[in-house]
Amino acid sequence: MNIDGTPWRTIWREPPGDAVRIIDQTLLPHRFETRPLRTLGDAAEAIATMRVRGAPLIGATAAYGLALGLQADPSDAGLELACATLIATRPTASNLAWALQRLRRGLEGAAPADRAERAFELADALCDEDVDINAAIGDHGLALIQELLDRRSGSGTFHILTHCNAGWLATVDWGTALAPIYKAFDAGLDVHVWVDETRPRNQGAALTAWELASHGVPFDVIVDNAGGHLMQHGQVDLVIVGTDRTVRSGDVCNKIGTYLKALAARDNAVPFHVALPGPTIDWRLSNGVRDIPIEERDPQEVTHIQGLGSDGELHSVLLTPEGAPGRNFAFDVTPARLVDGLITERGRCPASEEGLLGLYPEQRGGEAAA
Amino acid sequence: MNIDGTPWRTIWREPPGDAVRIIDQTLLPHRFETRPLRTLGDAAEAIATMRVRGAPLIGATAAYGLALGLQADPSDAGLELACATLIATRPTASNLAWALQRLRRGLEGAAPADRAERAFELADALCDEDVDINAAIGDHGLALIQELLDRRSGSGTFHILTHCNAGWLATVDWGTALAPIYKAFDAGLDVHVWVDETRPRNQGAALTAWELASHGVPFDVIVDNAGGHLMQHGQVDLVIVGTDRTVRSGDVCNKIGTYLKALAARDNAVPFHVALPGPTIDWRLSNGVRDIPIEERDPQEVTHIQGLGSDGELHSVLLTPEGAPGRNFAFDVTPARLVDGLITERGRCPASEEGLLGLYPEQRGGEAAA
Repeated sequence: MNIDGTPWRTIWREPPGDAVRIIDQTLLPHRFETRPLRTLGDAAEAIATMRVRGAPLIGATAAYGLALGLQADPSDAGLELACATLIATRPTASNLAWALQRLRRGLEGAAPADRAERAFELADALCDEDVDINAAIGDHGLALIQELLDRRSGSGTFHILTHCNAGWLATVDWGTALAPIYKAFDAGLDVHVWVDETRPRNQGAALTAWELASHGVPFDVIVDNAGGHLMQHGQVDLVIVGTDRTVRSGDVCNKIGTYLKALAARDNAVPFHVALPGPTIDWRLSNGVRDIPIEERDPQEVTHIQGLGSDGELHSVLLTPEGAPGRNFAFDVTPARLVDGLITERGRCPASEEGLLGLYPEQRGGEAAA
Repeated sequence: MNIDGTPWRTIWREPPGDAVRIIDQTLLPHRFETRPLRTLGDAAEAIATMRVRGAPLIGATAAYGLALGLQADPSDAGLELACATLIATRPTASNLAWALQRLRRGLEGAAPADRAERAFELADALCDEDVDINAAIGDHGLALIQELLDRRSGSGTFHILTHCNAGWLATVDWGTALAPIYKAFDAGLDVHVWVDETRPRNQGAALTAWELASHGVPFDVIVDNAGGHLMQHGQVDLVIVGTDRTVRSGDVCNKIGTYLKALAARDNAVPFHVALPGPTIDWRLSNGVRDIPIEERDPQEVTHIQGLGSDGELHSVLLTPEGAPGRNFAFDVTPARLVDGLITERGRCPASEEGLLGLYPEQRGGEAAA
């Protein structure tokens, strides 16, 4: 997507020399800086410290990290070391393992001398494929927006509410939930985005707001508490969110608070849609609320917050009484019954097992573990 | 309520000399300081700068402010000046006008020389009445908690979720939504409170957490996004919130985000109750969502936040990209259909016109304006 008129991806190669470069997301939204990844260690550090985040982008960075590792040591031992180093950075990121698996398969039979170059090509292909998947999600989401625009009686701005950041910063380009919004904006539609700040880590207020501002899409940041009021008063035409994991039944696990927005959308007959790449569907599970374990993170993310001080420096400040206890649940599960539709790279479908199997027939015959 | 074992009110007289003293709430939760009000100007400043906040406490402070004004100038002109000065501090606070009206009626016929003393007595009475009302809400809420405890199958801690601060800091003592919790805790019941931080002004993370910690009630601060997840997983036994305005039909207007919690409570069969003093019922309105105007405040409350820095000083930090637009809706309306019951000083009732008229029969025969 564009930053002030110039197209960017979140990760790219800079020939000559096969260095890789990323946008350092830990400095956003207050500072925009890019950063080279020259070694396996650089790539591992970027993932571990969340200079890059978002499942697809973590996978892409791991792929380039493996290529950089093979540049230094293309031996079998070097290959094993690179994979072990990268897998240890974010133990729960399933895209990381998936990307490394894919590169290892692609490298089978390659002579050590050819491995680095081959790995770079495979990483390039993986990135291009991510972009294609997200662009396709964007096209199918754009069709949904067009349908809703055709159907509605009033005219004027079309308001879309989103939660967290499922934008291009979480992928190589386009994003998932934001791809339809960029497509609609680029097509000249009059769209406006309500950006949930998304406490506790504020990915909405920081990253989604920065993305939209940089590309020029109109938006307003709101607190997570505000969406219900806006929906009650006809100020939301569509909710689109991403998902970290979708189960066979269509239940979706996404950033904490998504479920509350889905409830408000249903109570006010606002369409609630979830954008997802096919590879993030977990075909083994069928009951999301019961079966998806919810990560509990450091309460300090609740009791403290980081922002830009009047001195131009980043500061962390305490919000609660000193020593006050907090709990920090990272995700919640929105049951399929509250989801009006899923938007995938293969098209749209109802949030149900039959709906998903219609788009992914190769999964028919499989069964949920429970 | 207690602060580390010592009972306090939010406002009190300090004889001799008839000075009034308050807790300076702008410094909470990071610093606890009291502050004298010696003049009409002191009282007006305390209300305007929100050293005191919460409708009942604003009313009480205005009453003492009028008494302080009459101490300096007991003439008719002094009386008018004091009222005009106080009413201008927070134009939308209806309790402020109500308290001043009440004192003016009480002062009718008093000679100028007797006015100040009489005004202090009336202000004292107004405070004591507020305490009595809230204590009664607490008793009726405690009965509800007892009933829910008797009815439930499991044993163990009883978890109550609350939003914003409807605690003793918003009143003279006890609070409204928190009064039942203090009564339950003081009665030895095993209660635990989930404290919504309540963005954007964080009255939960700052004030409710401080109140509960000071009195010794077990609690955890959570982000506003977390309540739905907790209810899905059986971690909430009861939701109690306060209300800024209740209409004839039982619709309640409370801090933004309350509606989302009510939706989650209904979806998970968690009892959702609202605590309110009778005087805050607006008998003229019957459709809260349609008819209650919602205050929109400075977006800076969304884009910035204040907290305690590592240097021990209070800092305001920017959370969004520089110049990012925001919108800041202060309240939302929870329709009566989502409210399982109202808790008033006269007892509990269904959230409906019939329910309210059962407790306030003197309002029968009145009609909503619309």
